[in-house]
Amino acid sequence: MTDKIFRVNMGDLSVKIEDVPTPLQGLGGRALTSTIVATEVPPTCHPLGKHNKLIFAPGLLSGTRAANSGRLSAGAKSPLTEGIKECNSGGTAAQLMARMGIKALILEGIPAEGQFYALKVTSEGVEITAESDLLGEGNFALIEKLKVADKKDCGLLSIGQAGERCQLSANISVKDPDGKLRSLGRGGLGAVMGSKGVKYILIDAVDAPKRVSVVDEDKFKVAAKTFAKALIDHPVCGSALGAYGTNVLVNIVNEVGGLPTKNFRTGQFDQHEMISGEKMSEMIEARGGKVKHGCHAGCVMQCSQVYVDKEGNYVTSGFEYETIWGMGAHCCIADLDILAQADSVMDDIGVDSIEMAVTIGVAMEAGIIEFGDGPGLLKLLQEVKEGTPLGRILGSGAGVTGKVYGLSRVPVVKNQAIPAYDPRSVKGIGITYCTSTMGADHTAGYSVATNILKCGGFIDPLQKEGQVELSRNLQIATAAIDSTGLCLFIAFAVLDDETALPAIVDMLNARFGISLTADDVTALGMSVLKTERAFNQAAGLTNAHDRLPEFFVDEKVPPHNAIWDFSDAEIDEFWNF
Amino acid sequence: MTDKIFRVNMGDLSVKIEDVPTPLQGLGGRALTSTIVATEVPPTCHPLGKHNKLIFAPGLLSGTRAANSGRLSAGAKSPLTEGIKECNSGGTAAQLMARMGIKALILEGIPAEGQFYALKVTSEGVEITAESDLLGEGNFALIEKLKVADKKDCGLLSIGQAGERCQLSANISVKDPDGKLRSLGRGGLGAVMGSKGVKYILIDAVDAPKRVSVVDEDKFKVAAKTFAKALIDHPVCGSALGAYGTNVLVNIVNEVGGLPTKNFRTGQFDQHEMISGEKMSEMIEARGGKVKHGCHAGCVMQCSQVYVDKEGNYVTSGFEYETIWGMGAHCCIADLDILAQADSVMDDIGVDSIEMAVTIGVAMEAGIIEFGDGPGLLKLLQEVKEGTPLGRILGSGAGVTGKVYGLSRVPVVKNQAIPAYDPRSVKGIGITYCTSTMGADHTAGYSVATNILKCGGFIDPLQKEGQVELSRNLQIATAAIDSTGLCLFIAFAVLDDETALPAIVDMLNARFGISLTADDVTALGMSVLKTERAFNQAAGLTNAHDRLPEFFVDEKVPPHNAIWDFSDAEIDEFWNF
Repeated sequence: MTDKIFRVNMGDLSVKIEDVPTPLQGLGGRALTSTIVATEVPPTCHPLGKHNKLIFAPGLLSGTRAANSGRLSAGAKSPLTEGIKECNSGGTAAQLMARMGIKALILEGIPAEGQFYALKVTSEGVEITAESDLLGEGNFALIEKLKVADKKDCGLLSIGQAGERCQLSANISVKDPDGKLRSLGRGGLGAVMGSKGVKYILIDAVDAPKRVSVVDEDKFKVAAKTFAKALIDHPVCGSALGAYGTNVLVNIVNEVGGLPTKNFRTGQFDQHEMISGEKMSEMIEARGGKVKHGCHAGCVMQCSQVYVDKEGNYVTSGFEYETIWGMGAHCCIADLDILAQADSVMDDIGVDSIEMAVTIGVAMEAGIIEFGDGPGLLKLLQEVKEGTPLGRILGSGAGVTGKVYGLSRVPVVKNQAIPAYDPRSVKGIGITYCTSTMGADHTAGYSVATNILKCGGFIDPLQKEGQVELSRNLQIATAAIDSTGLCLFIAFAVLDDETALPAIVDMLNARFGISLTADDVTALGMSVLKTERAFNQAAGLTNAHDRLPEFFVDEKVPPHNAIWDFSDAEIDEFWNF
Repeated sequence: MTDKIFRVNMGDLSVKIEDVPTPLQGLGGRALTSTIVATEVPPTCHPLGKHNKLIFAPGLLSGTRAANSGRLSAGAKSPLTEGIKECNSGGTAAQLMARMGIKALILEGIPAEGQFYALKVTSEGVEITAESDLLGEGNFALIEKLKVADKKDCGLLSIGQAGERCQLSANISVKDPDGKLRSLGRGGLGAVMGSKGVKYILIDAVDAPKRVSVVDEDKFKVAAKTFAKALIDHPVCGSALGAYGTNVLVNIVNEVGGLPTKNFRTGQFDQHEMISGEKMSEMIEARGGKVKHGCHAGCVMQCSQVYVDKEGNYVTSGFEYETIWGMGAHCCIADLDILAQADSVMDDIGVDSIEMAVTIGVAMEAGIIEFGDGPGLLKLLQEVKEGTPLGRILGSGAGVTGKVYGLSRVPVVKNQAIPAYDPRSVKGIGITYCTSTMGADHTAGYSVATNILKCGGFIDPLQKEGQVELSRNLQIATAAIDSTGLCLFIAFAVLDDETALPAIVDMLNARFGISLTADDVTALGMSVLKTERAFNQAAGLTNAHDRLPEFFVDEKVPPHNAIWDFSDAEIDEFWNF
């Protein structure tokens, strides 16, 4: 079966199934979505208008037996950053699409105002039907009403109320193997899906083969085994992430003074232990939830969990460090049960939990509610769900909320909320926030690995030396990894275990019958970044946007009294490659 | 008396009175504010943070006997456009400051959060006192409570509730000779004043000479007489503006199909006669108001008016075409009494009436109220006054409102609302909207003069030919005029009467004992534009921001079915000088 591009025009409700043009054949995931956006979307177009396109693409290794290869990329011009955007997520859709031979699914055009549709994608094509019954429903109700929770061969991409309203913080939900949600989170891609009038996309892979074809099956098996072993043997990938989830980071990041607290006023939260991964595991175990859970088939890390309430009832999963930090330390709320409830509400509404958590902290800065007010936070999320004027403001993200309330202490870069590591005391991640083509995004070049977790060596997080190079190398590697369909967390193993990268290269070669080298993978990463950067420049983003908000320069952050002390020229050095 | 720069630091509440540095000595008005912003304000700073500065400067001819020379410029980095901003306004402050020898008043720094102050400026210095009693008051109440309405030698610059809240549409009010208001309207400078914790600035010129000194008094008198005659003899300056105010334009612009109606869906408003200048004059005369009124001493055009209600009670003045268009045709409300009431409310709250009117139309596009709902409009303004969440959204301007409600038909350039002339059917003004350093601003290069009013020749508004050159020439001339303190409306006479420009040059030379030529004035205009453009580029504004929203390209506007058909390269040609 030759892979195809499925192209759906929501303007005239037409569908085309196209051969993959030669220049796109070697691309997958982020490399593919970013290349299509750069090629087909006018950089100055309105992100919610008919010229923007929303592209879904499984990674190059998705649908194979490779461990942790089930990431789906989504790309578009972001209504939040006004630049290019790629998000990727676990869940089942990537593997199903890969098995169905769908190299990419492109949504283009916009329907008549207020019209919504459902798409059903099979190997044969796409069925478009008008949708009205499920409008106004959250993502969980969708899964329930569509009766797809248990259907292993049926994927679901959907938007909640926030996406229907084209809110800038809206994400796209991806059903996981247990009928729960993962998210294509950042940059408001849910608003793009909403602008195209698509409430949900059913991916029906019942008739598809169980696995994608691989050119050299034996070679692939060997490489895949080596790769999986590298993951399992690594202390972060094989142990810490499974035991405590990503929330293992709360205590660690607090310890080094990099846990942004009370809207970035200090780097330590005095109640950090109450929201830590250790505490969370303890509670989950005591209540009979699940400490380990995988977001897609073939995951050996199991960093997700099933968080239950005191009565043992399911509350949320995919309850991540960044979300917990955002509502916890950033908003000063030290109650995991409230945070878990809020996480579930955000998943249901369909908003990026990082953007929303940071926004709530900005709302606290504005005095709408007090720092530490957990019930107040839940009420604000209810406003977002209902789409009240205040809910609309918050749903528009931290940058807009800051403008509406006349604030200058607003932690965003390129209008996207800064995540869970203070750039003053973890300087490598600050370089990533500044320079990432995605706006502030820790995943774009996760310097925390080397600055704090000491993977791939150690670069002192409080010193400037080496941070630009660190961020550059990680951003290049990440752009490549995001193209493979592999979970970014494999990077810990790649940084420390010399068998991991060759195994990935071997898998790619065995999958496609090609002969890439590690250098080719690096070149791919560079090329992706440059493609994205060129789009952003044509869209009007310049070096002036590669900057942190000035309060990071003007205010010292305890406990180290660190400031952001990179010159413009030092930051701009990032792009010298 | 040698002019001085008064510099007030709101961070430490200190005041300095400085000599004017040599490079600034030949500058006034816009040339001075833009040069100081470009020199002293870091382009990437937060507009509401401590690094921004707010500068007030009378024009070079302010305080002289020159007709219509009482314009005050204000400059800063705009929180609305994120670029440089200069606004200018009538009222009494410019002439008073000039008489007091104040070349510029600079506000810098920001006080502790939530602190507000009043400034009293005399020739001797600036007195800073904490202000709490008048917080939350509108501009009219301020004038009343400060008892300055009738004080000819006492000027007032103030912000209403919107400025206190640092709303992006907030303006700065300038008391006029009758204790009414004029506005430093566009780009949110009231938010900058609010961020600096300054509720109002009293300009006390009781001890100042009645007129500024002029080096060659005889030469000045002759030139001033020639200049005044050129104004009085011109059909627009000397007749139409006085008879009908700027609102003379409603019928004219409707006739040529350039009156944006129902959020730019068509170029003609079927009820245009109900809101026309002719209708307004008739009503004012019948009710015993004043058809003619000057916004500052020495105005020979008298384009303002005193609009009264059915009982003859004062409602508003400075009731301009753009405001009437915005709430009228744009929002489809054909009731001058409602529009006048709304105009008064906007003056009181202290919001730019263009930004707010366009925003209300965007709110109608979002379905918050229906097009044509006059009482609904007044209710929305009440929300802005009260600072409810919805009021906060609207107070943030059209761009933010569009984002919050997920719209793509949002008429802004550089996030500033597009005013009262459809760029598709009046193409010269479209070039001005695109390229102005100020964001969409008709006053920056008022091509309507030549495209519609046939001043300075005629260039067909529906054709592309000649529009870039027209806009360029007008923008250069405007930048120079905005530096003199002369009202922009003198440009009509300058375009048609060959005695006008030499008279202005003679007045400048006589005032300062210099020997400028007309070419020097042009060079000044060019220099101002280039200074502003360089600031904007350093702030992150690029050619990609010199574009109209895509709906102007995609949607034809009746009655001519005109579209915006300039290529990027054609627009960018503007900057070739």
